[in-house]
Amino acid sequence: MSPSADFERMWSDLAPIGRSARSGGYFRQPLGSAERECHAWFVEQCEARGLWVETDPVGNTVGWWGYPERGGAKAVLCGSHLDSVLDGGAYDGPLGVVSGLAAVDALRERGFTPQRPIGVSAFVEEEGSRFGLACLGSRLATGAMPWEKAAELTDRDGVRFGEALSAAGLPPDPDHPDSGQPGWTELTDRIGCFVELHVEQGRDLVDRGAPVGVASAIWPHGRYRFEFSGQANHAGTTRMEDRRDPMLSYAMTVLAANKQARLAGQRATFGRVDVHPNGTNAVPSRVTAWLDARAESPQHLDELLAAVQRLASERADRDGTSLQVTAESVSGAVDFDPSLADRIAAHEDGDWPIIPTMAGHDAGIISEAGVPTAMLFVRNPTGVSHSPDEHAEMADCLAGVEALADTLERLAGS
Amino acid sequence: MSPSADFERMWSDLAPIGRSARSGGYFRQPLGSAERECHAWFVEQCEARGLWVETDPVGNTVGWWGYPERGGAKAVLCGSHLDSVLDGGAYDGPLGVVSGLAAVDALRERGFTPQRPIGVSAFVEEEGSRFGLACLGSRLATGAMPWEKAAELTDRDGVRFGEALSAAGLPPDPDHPDSGQPGWTELTDRIGCFVELHVEQGRDLVDRGAPVGVASAIWPHGRYRFEFSGQANHAGTTRMEDRRDPMLSYAMTVLAANKQARLAGQRATFGRVDVHPNGTNAVPSRVTAWLDARAESPQHLDELLAAVQRLASERADRDGTSLQVTAESVSGAVDFDPSLADRIAAHEDGDWPIIPTMAGHDAGIISEAGVPTAMLFVRNPTGVSHSPDEHAEMADCLAGVEALADTLERLAGS
Repeated sequence: MSPSADFERMWSDLAPIGRSARSGGYFRQPLGSAERECHAWFVEQCEARGLWVETDPVGNTVGWWGYPERGGAKAVLCGSHLDSVLDGGAYDGPLGVVSGLAAVDALRERGFTPQRPIGVSAFVEEEGSRFGLACLGSRLATGAMPWEKAAELTDRDGVRFGEALSAAGLPPDPDHPDSGQPGWTELTDRIGCFVELHVEQGRDLVDRGAPVGVASAIWPHGRYRFEFSGQANHAGTTRMEDRRDPMLSYAMTVLAANKQARLAGQRATFGRVDVHPNGTNAVPSRVTAWLDARAESPQHLDELLAAVQRLASERADRDGTSLQVTAESVSGAVDFDPSLADRIAAHEDGDWPIIPTMAGHDAGIISEAGVPTAMLFVRNPTGVSHSPDEHAEMADCLAGVEALADTLERLAGS
Repeated sequence: MSPSADFERMWSDLAPIGRSARSGGYFRQPLGSAERECHAWFVEQCEARGLWVETDPVGNTVGWWGYPERGGAKAVLCGSHLDSVLDGGAYDGPLGVVSGLAAVDALRERGFTPQRPIGVSAFVEEEGSRFGLACLGSRLATGAMPWEKAAELTDRDGVRFGEALSAAGLPPDPDHPDSGQPGWTELTDRIGCFVELHVEQGRDLVDRGAPVGVASAIWPHGRYRFEFSGQANHAGTTRMEDRRDPMLSYAMTVLAANKQARLAGQRATFGRVDVHPNGTNAVPSRVTAWLDARAESPQHLDELLAAVQRLASERADRDGTSLQVTAESVSGAVDFDPSLADRIAAHEDGDWPIIPTMAGHDAGIISEAGVPTAMLFVRNPTGVSHSPDEHAEMADCLAGVEALADTLERLAGS
């Protein structure tokens, strides 16, 4: 089977897993049944290729072509993740994993023999859609997040991350060398570089007329929990002026955050809100909402948050409600290795464009751990992502596989 | 045991059922386990008093003192409901049921012999907290709502009302005379009047220094579903100006509704909202929210809704989102029987005040079915309702029982 036919077959294998019949979007939350099915499929695909499969105690998995000995030649790692946001697209994550397997196929087709091990990885909970912290798996694998803290993260149903791992058959093994601190703390010692291929989540490559691009940097990014507290009351009998309604404080904050970000060319989104008690005829006692904010520098991000928080607090004072803001995760700016990016972008038919991204990725976490890291983007005709409408053309996906294979050949060939 | 000790014992029987240890509020959703436990308790209390218990196929229950024959002397019905809003108070509903039982005890203590049957009722799903339609039980019992339509109402988990009845052991009985249309369609033919005692849901009686009051009217009231649709997208990579974010349209609508109602002395509340997909890093595709609106006349209610809807649509146009508004339930104004109110308010130590209410009640439905109907209110020191903080002093509750007993004595004594 040709590498392109093989890619298409793998893509159609994954297509039905965790897809909503209603929306066409994907619900592949980490350690849930759909994501676990994707994971089992990935392990099968690795084994079918004779790759040596290693799964760490939190579920991050790598299929290795050549065993990555400690102290030996440092490995070249590619890959991405298999989990999705709620009702997400097919490409964000799986495209990088499937392209990694397809690139291995392409390299073998070329008769290439790697001089250093090549790994294809699938990291756990990249989206943060279940436990609230993006890139949880790569944070644990690089030691950026201590296990003790990760184990206590809870999902919307109050299930702790540690419990979810046990339920998925991934209990921390008491005889494991990392016992007490699951995760490949040594992963960063074993790899010489990491390349993540990902669908583009904007229209930059469309504007540039290129099927593939290379990342220059990731914007700083924060997730902040805004908890507005008021007083529950009867929606009919309580006069408007006697209320302490946190929905009002929340509503003004949504509009203020949008305006601040729009004027400054930044990003601020309230996409998730929980209301208590959430009854039609009750003034809520509490509105909890999450701000996703991104800006071009850490200082700009701080200023954006401060402005939104100030406007929210002023409105809360007027509404007689109170506001507590908690930073759930803040990621600094990531500048990818420029020489690696230049080397990857060099292409016989003209260089691939080098562009920034506003989205966080496992590649950002691994770069921050001191590993030379790069990203390849595949063109997205509409720019839509985190949505059932997310799409990439098959020809562009195959161009991505070729670009990844070329990159692995250059990086693992000497 | 004295009637007051008996009241206190009944009150403490109910206190723990369905109470959240965290908030102290009640979760007694209709046909759920806590509400069914309250219902079973009510049946026991009726049977302990030798009342004849009749439960209709949708779970409305009456304990009768004297059998209400069709064609005989028309009965006097009192009572209220046992279900609560989500995280509601102890008094809204149960106070009327418990006071009905305590009033029967007080009348027997007085040696009173009724000339017409007296019933104590508990209606199902008064709050609309599960199936979205307030006073569902009394609507079915009076024929205001056809069974076929009610059976198809669904809760948040997609469970139909008909299924929930079956799960609670209340399948429509094929041999029942009302088979095919459960509910006491004849209830209104068998009762001559209805009196609902209820905790006040405002501070009018506090201002008037009265422990008990009598209702004059209920404001018209509507529940409207606002469905804002946009486009799901990535919260980081999508430029603010490229978004079609329904959260923005919703937020402006919350503020506009509040302002409209505040300026006109009306009520408009968004207390419930569902967001899809409700992820921190995704621009939502859909925000569904429920407007609870009340005004002094049907015309004012229509104008209030029209103003909110116009402002919401204008904003949706600007946001590139779309809006669909559905009236889920609209109740007209209810003017209670004035001569009945005057008769009940007459009191040897000076008349009880006669006051309007902005809250819907089963009494409103029964009044609209042509039955002379009245309401008694018990003072609420803070006015807070639909909240764990809802409260009434025991002395005022006992004054309410006395007032209800006096009322039943007058109405059933001849």
